[in-house]
Amino acid sequence: MNAEIVAVGSELLLGQIADTNSQFLSAELAGIGINVYRHTVIGDNKGRLTQVLKEVSERTDVAIISGGLGPTEDDITKEVVSNLTAAPLLYHGPTLKNIETFFQKRGLHMSPNNKKQAHYVEGSDVFFNDVGLACGMAISYRDTLFILLPGPPRELKAMFVEKVKPYLLQKLGGSSIVHSRVLRFFGIGESLLEEKILDIIRTQSNPTVAPLAVDGEVTVRLTAKAATKEEAIQLIDELEQKIKEKVGHFMYGVDEDTLPLQTARYLKENNLTIAVAESLTGGWFSKILVDMPGASAFFEGSTTVYSKEAKENILSIDRQLLDQYGTVSKECAESMAIQVRQLFGTDIGISFTGSAGPEALEGKKPGTVWISIAGPKGTRSHHLQLSGGRGQIRRLAVYYGCWFLLKEKVVTNDVL
Amino acid sequence: MNAEIVAVGSELLLGQIADTNSQFLSAELAGIGINVYRHTVIGDNKGRLTQVLKEVSERTDVAIISGGLGPTEDDITKEVVSNLTAAPLLYHGPTLKNIETFFQKRGLHMSPNNKKQAHYVEGSDVFFNDVGLACGMAISYRDTLFILLPGPPRELKAMFVEKVKPYLLQKLGGSSIVHSRVLRFFGIGESLLEEKILDIIRTQSNPTVAPLAVDGEVTVRLTAKAATKEEAIQLIDELEQKIKEKVGHFMYGVDEDTLPLQTARYLKENNLTIAVAESLTGGWFSKILVDMPGASAFFEGSTTVYSKEAKENILSIDRQLLDQYGTVSKECAESMAIQVRQLFGTDIGISFTGSAGPEALEGKKPGTVWISIAGPKGTRSHHLQLSGGRGQIRRLAVYYGCWFLLKEKVVTNDVL
Repeated sequence: MNAEIVAVGSELLLGQIADTNSQFLSAELAGIGINVYRHTVIGDNKGRLTQVLKEVSERTDVAIISGGLGPTEDDITKEVVSNLTAAPLLYHGPTLKNIETFFQKRGLHMSPNNKKQAHYVEGSDVFFNDVGLACGMAISYRDTLFILLPGPPRELKAMFVEKVKPYLLQKLGGSSIVHSRVLRFFGIGESLLEEKILDIIRTQSNPTVAPLAVDGEVTVRLTAKAATKEEAIQLIDELEQKIKEKVGHFMYGVDEDTLPLQTARYLKENNLTIAVAESLTGGWFSKILVDMPGASAFFEGSTTVYSKEAKENILSIDRQLLDQYGTVSKECAESMAIQVRQLFGTDIGISFTGSAGPEALEGKKPGTVWISIAGPKGTRSHHLQLSGGRGQIRRLAVYYGCWFLLKEKVVTNDVL
Repeated sequence: MNAEIVAVGSELLLGQIADTNSQFLSAELAGIGINVYRHTVIGDNKGRLTQVLKEVSERTDVAIISGGLGPTEDDITKEVVSNLTAAPLLYHGPTLKNIETFFQKRGLHMSPNNKKQAHYVEGSDVFFNDVGLACGMAISYRDTLFILLPGPPRELKAMFVEKVKPYLLQKLGGSSIVHSRVLRFFGIGESLLEEKILDIIRTQSNPTVAPLAVDGEVTVRLTAKAATKEEAIQLIDELEQKIKEKVGHFMYGVDEDTLPLQTARYLKENNLTIAVAESLTGGWFSKILVDMPGASAFFEGSTTVYSKEAKENILSIDRQLLDQYGTVSKECAESMAIQVRQLFGTDIGISFTGSAGPEALEGKKPGTVWISIAGPKGTRSHHLQLSGGRGQIRRLAVYYGCWFLLKEKVVTNDVL
């Protein structure tokens, strides 16, 4: 079964938002073995949307169409599909009731255009919207199954996972299974990684091997086809082992793992607590730890000491040290890590100082970064020279903080 | 002049990344009056890319094609365009030299596949890559101008702004100007805002009016066509005034303005300093202030007091207060704002406490948020009941922090 994805919305063609729905849908469809061959983005224009849907119906088995189900004048998807299929628009009872209740409960006035969100095309299978108002639907046009989903990502995701995925799986029946796994690497560039595993990439056809560089890390997606999921997993396991033999040192996780998630796991599993002292990163490292549900198990708190005075007053960094070495220095980073560990009474203290730009700081050019990790037995410091803009430098520094924590196995390795 | 955008990369069809390049290019093209009618995403497959480029050439004046210029085996865009135009691939001297220098300088081994990045199609105008390795180019195919850009967003953006935009403007010559402005609103929903300005939306054709809800805020894009930029701006000014009369209270800025940016401006312009105490938001508010270049002018520092002990020990919040009212309370928020203001010696202290979920905290359901702002003359507190997941609740709380600071004009309004 092959699929295409169509996103409807002039805001996408004006560049006001990115088409993240098609990304989500693609990953989900790949996960159940449906190949996606094309994405199309088209504006809120009846003629052009009609044209795209006709083209798509000549190429694909399933077309997932997102957006244009809302209450406003430029929401036209249902009308266009109704015209194409020559089936009238009707009101879906449960959806209409849900819309009315929504406004009543909040004591809000329901503008009449909201009723439109309960429309469905006669003959379609309707998907009730559990987290929003507009219903979705599935309807055949010629030999293509059109699936209409709401545009807001939260609604689209919930409706796809809860309603559409089981619906598609049932239609797929007993075909072969496609399973994939993403291996995640940090601290190595894409082209070097690819060179190191080039023989594997060239000789492998099942699983296939696809490297990709995103946001300072590199991923390698292994995708296997097999009769059963177990068989596919075994093929992937074997290949992962071969890749690890070559570049395992740089691998930090798989699939949905992230550096912050692995850091949180490491801290939790080893019953370690952490406190954070930030200058350069300005609260960002603290924020990514708190992003993790259950952060209170390992995270005590943090302080951003942005000014020199704050470094002195809040973290009691020695004035002489600051004057002699500057704030962008190994000495300052070390002192920050040691002091924040003491202040919050944690096992680990980690600190970030550096120059984010746009101007040089204390004569240190943008991208100069010091990260220190303090444990009960001592301190380790790392110097980085990063490139990119202000945001990129700070983001990479945050990731490197995770990476150093994971690689050093601070405290548990008995070194610090 | 009409345009379409084609993004090339199987990683996009697998859902590994979102197509942010097409968003960026769309916004840029709209800015110079080029209408974008379609985006297409296609995989690293020669046959299918050839097919898409043929289709596109039948519909549009300009096709901007991003991705597939890199060193690896699946980078095929140049080869496909070379075949279509029946023009050979040659090496671009300055680009080849740049690639060799890049590897030499870093003492890295240059794998032979990197040379591929210097390829260009004979007869094209070549764009040198100032921030990466692969060169871009422009070449005509039938009546369509193909513009090839590198896939990494940083490289694509720099090449488009520095090289391609002037190139296109020159080709455009003296046609009519399209100018647009985005009005930005917070604290009002899309459908209510649309209802309030529905008469304007329905009667306006120049400028056009396009509302959009993104990430908790609502934008309204006004787009005018006129003979000169000045004329277009005047049309937009007049319409903006009419819209402000209806919903001006909720408007916080225009175009690239963001709530953090406006907050930074407000603090700078009034010579105010701020310190931040966070629990719920975990450093996020501090991070968005430091995102602003020149943050040191108004930002002293922050502390994330995530545990109860940290609230007591770092911010000296009264134990009895914590026991009596809990940490998710007006009383705790107020005390946090007052104490952090004192600790850092700033004009303003702002605090965030609440329940982000997934579980209720101290019996307060996820989404319960308290934000307090302390100034020299007193404290103001705000209660919010937000919906969404852990990330959404915390993100909205951060934005509301900015919103309250801006709306209250703390200190300068002589109230606090």
